[in-house]
Amino acid sequence: MARIFNFNAGPATLPLEVLEEAQRDLLDFQGTGMSLIESSHRGKAYDAVHAEAVANYRQLLHCPDDYAVLFLPGGASMQFAMLPLNLLPAGQTADYIHSGAWASKAIKEARLVGKVNIAADTGKAQPARLPAAGELQLTPGAAYVHLTSNETIAGTQWKTFPQTAAPLVADMSSDILSRPFDIRQFGMIYAGAQKNIGPSGIALVALRKDLAARAPANLPVMLRYQTHIEENSLYNTPPTFSIYLMMLVSRWLLKNGLETVYRRNREKADKIYAAIDATEFYRGTAVREFRSDMNITFRLPSEPLEEQFVKEASRQGMSGLKGHRSVGGVRASVYNALPMEGAQALADFMREFARKNG
Amino acid sequence: MARIFNFNAGPATLPLEVLEEAQRDLLDFQGTGMSLIESSHRGKAYDAVHAEAVANYRQLLHCPDDYAVLFLPGGASMQFAMLPLNLLPAGQTADYIHSGAWASKAIKEARLVGKVNIAADTGKAQPARLPAAGELQLTPGAAYVHLTSNETIAGTQWKTFPQTAAPLVADMSSDILSRPFDIRQFGMIYAGAQKNIGPSGIALVALRKDLAARAPANLPVMLRYQTHIEENSLYNTPPTFSIYLMMLVSRWLLKNGLETVYRRNREKADKIYAAIDATEFYRGTAVREFRSDMNITFRLPSEPLEEQFVKEASRQGMSGLKGHRSVGGVRASVYNALPMEGAQALADFMREFARKNG
Repeated sequence: MARIFNFNAGPATLPLEVLEEAQRDLLDFQGTGMSLIESSHRGKAYDAVHAEAVANYRQLLHCPDDYAVLFLPGGASMQFAMLPLNLLPAGQTADYIHSGAWASKAIKEARLVGKVNIAADTGKAQPARLPAAGELQLTPGAAYVHLTSNETIAGTQWKTFPQTAAPLVADMSSDILSRPFDIRQFGMIYAGAQKNIGPSGIALVALRKDLAARAPANLPVMLRYQTHIEENSLYNTPPTFSIYLMMLVSRWLLKNGLETVYRRNREKADKIYAAIDATEFYRGTAVREFRSDMNITFRLPSEPLEEQFVKEASRQGMSGLKGHRSVGGVRASVYNALPMEGAQALADFMREFARKNG
Repeated sequence: MARIFNFNAGPATLPLEVLEEAQRDLLDFQGTGMSLIESSHRGKAYDAVHAEAVANYRQLLHCPDDYAVLFLPGGASMQFAMLPLNLLPAGQTADYIHSGAWASKAIKEARLVGKVNIAADTGKAQPARLPAAGELQLTPGAAYVHLTSNETIAGTQWKTFPQTAAPLVADMSSDILSRPFDIRQFGMIYAGAQKNIGPSGIALVALRKDLAARAPANLPVMLRYQTHIEENSLYNTPPTFSIYLMMLVSRWLLKNGLETVYRRNREKADKIYAAIDATEFYRGTAVREFRSDMNITFRLPSEPLEEQFVKEASRQGMSGLKGHRSVGGVRASVYNALPMEGAQALADFMREFARKNG
């Protein structure tokens, strides 16, 4: 088996040992005589998996008792809808910070549900950047303030989060648990799992429990955070195998330690940004102070060169480097599980490619 | 490896060859150097999987061109909400047939969204049964009529579906593709995958495309069937690995043929019902004409005997026979992938257990 270096933006590379364990147990989960995929979500085998997943993510996020950790089907896009359906009462306003494509999708859903104020808009800034704290025009008494902690397409990342009077809500899909942060600064965070913590089709949600009480009485049961808080994400049959994979990733995170994972992420990103900055051949597309440690976006002198770059890298075992279809260019996604050797191989390749084609 | 006979009600047993293929390819999907779990949902490898899943389920369901087949996150419980949110306009009424625990959950969600008429109620009938066509009190001009094709807990199954003027909608979670049926009799069908066609956390939906146009303008994008029809279930990142498993199951279904699968299902159920009817020791809990081929529910003379039955069966490699926590008793779920040998083993065990304890 030849595993390649996978720079996909998501679904994305997972720790090899997670996949190896899932593979080993796929036909017979821990002597139960069946796959975990076939196990009852009310049975002992899955119970232990579910309980460990909840406990591990609580620990990794340093969740205080007044926060709930939920596993909900549908990824971040479903949360774009559930968030305003639950937390934006009629007549109130939610502040959204527009910082790019993903913030834009969250805003689109919120506008269908209630009143939205765009507190700042750097969505079309070139080079890509995020607003400074002073730029934010917040609504007094806002239901919440929403931001996107890392813009996967633009390649920008909040380095410090703004202090807000209203509960701060963050879509952390593309940098969840890539670095330490203080959850008490947030009313709610959510993340599609498919970048740093698992497979696609499921979201991790952590929220202050009191916020769930805002949901209107006629909101369907399945769409209420309160339902899933009360039932510990077991109101209905959850995506059991996905939660199992997330549990295995949580073990890997705890074993390595979040501080170590963060240090490695910084080191991986630095290697690639250094290769960008070493020559005029490459041009980073994000303002330096907002450069993402997760998604490194850059351009080459021409589109044909970009195409050639992606193709040659792929032949050398580095896959997924094509920029998002909406913006073009090159994007290296270097999530938690991307090995240091992958970042080094890409940086080396970049220097060599620039030398040959510059 | 010792695989046991898994009578779980869902998540449930899957074809062994499906799990074996998933296991084999888990670290390196078809020479791509990565797991399918790590593959981009916009890339070639996953594209082929997705396209085959859609095509195979269209074929298995004999879907005409004016029907869409969708893969949506969240299982049947999410559809309980999405259905009325999309198909029940303000001011109109939806007819629901109350036939047990699952119909009841669908009704609960619909009532939060709009006006519901209970067209018939056999939800508490003992022994369990379904309404006759003549019992239905349908609303003229109803938005749709909803039924549950198989009640997993009660052990009842519609053998022929009622003719209705309004579009008929069926929750087929627990008997989807266990038998042939004419989809043109339905405006929409949906099924959580975790019983007959895949893992938990995802639903198969097939609906007449024109019905999707009813959704109100302020319904969130993610909750609109129209969104997923237009984007072929790729509006956002879908649960890629779950759809892959469903695709593998669809291959298995096509290879065996739905008529053969149905004949085997009838044969498996007959074996177990024959063991029930062979003695006074067992008592089937459903009226004979509505007995489910999928979930076979019965009682023993006492609860301690039921407990002993479940324990001894488990020691003999037959798992998951405990009745649903809400009703007790014994339940054998004999979905498509439960081998004939499993049904035979259970029938033999039942005869022996009755002889020893009767």
